[in-house]
Amino acid sequence: MKKRHFATSLGLAVILTGTAFAAGHISEDVTKAMEARQAHMTLYSFNMATLGGMAQDRTPYDAAAATAAANNLAAIANMDQSAYWVEGSDSSVEGSRAKAEIWSNADDYAEKIAALASASTALAAVAGNDLDALKGAFGPVGGSCAACHRAYRVSDN
Amino acid sequence: MKKRHFATSLGLAVILTGTAFAAGHISEDVTKAMEARQAHMTLYSFNMATLGGMAQDRTPYDAAAATAAANNLAAIANMDQSAYWVEGSDSSVEGSRAKAEIWSNADDYAEKIAALASASTALAAVAGNDLDALKGAFGPVGGSCAACHRAYRVSDN
Repeated sequence: MKKRHFATSLGLAVILTGTAFAAGHISEDVTKAMEARQAHMTLYSFNMATLGGMAQDRTPYDAAAATAAANNLAAIANMDQSAYWVEGSDSSVEGSRAKAEIWSNADDYAEKIAALASASTALAAVAGNDLDALKGAFGPVGGSCAACHRAYRVSDN
Repeated sequence: MKKRHFATSLGLAVILTGTAFAAGHISEDVTKAMEARQAHMTLYSFNMATLGGMAQDRTPYDAAAATAAANNLAAIANMDQSAYWVEGSDSSVEGSRAKAEIWSNADDYAEKIAALASASTALAAVAGNDLDALKGAFGPVGGSCAACHRAYRVSDN
């Protein structure tokens, strides 16, 4: 399959295949990219559940578990995610909740990804100190998740 | 829900809930742990596809893409995976292909996880140099995937 890759200034990769697809039909590459970014989100969610349980006093504070989850979260958030966001994978495709604005507002989208990376790195630095430190640094992480979802994820409703 | 966490010497976490489940019934915690480790594997696969395509001469070598994929792979492989491997999530449960030997041979399992982390860190260090460097370091990564699957994943057949 003939492909051209463009790395934009925004860190988003645009992959154009040499084939035109009928509406609703997506290539295996697009499917794989969607699966990968959804897996990425699942790992955010898994580690956020551990951290959020402690930050919101639903589970006892455990410094080692908090550190592990926060380090994991920071590792994922700092990954290069450019290969996920391929053309033709917005919410017009079944299984995608990605708004088309991800591509049309790519600068802002990249900023929101960077905000999560920054907030989760800051959380990882202090999550093992004590519960107050965890609570203080958890807020900006949750806030950056929410800001991006609000702007770029199609609502459940 | 009452839980007790034991961090074993092998880096595996054993989570016992206070409830006994009927065969086939699994808790939400176990489901979440299985989803997370399968997401983790999806991200291995996604990045390995990029690297393998180049290492096996199916796609042109691209230093930036190779570096991004190898860095991602190393980031994932070096994550703390202890929270994934909860009791009651072996292949007796629907959707799991995890052999019970993961828990009974936990030392060896931990070694196999460490081997992938080590091989993928080594790959990340050289993947952007040139294709020969990528090919040389890719083999041990693929080998460590295969060794662990052979020992600890139920076969498709």
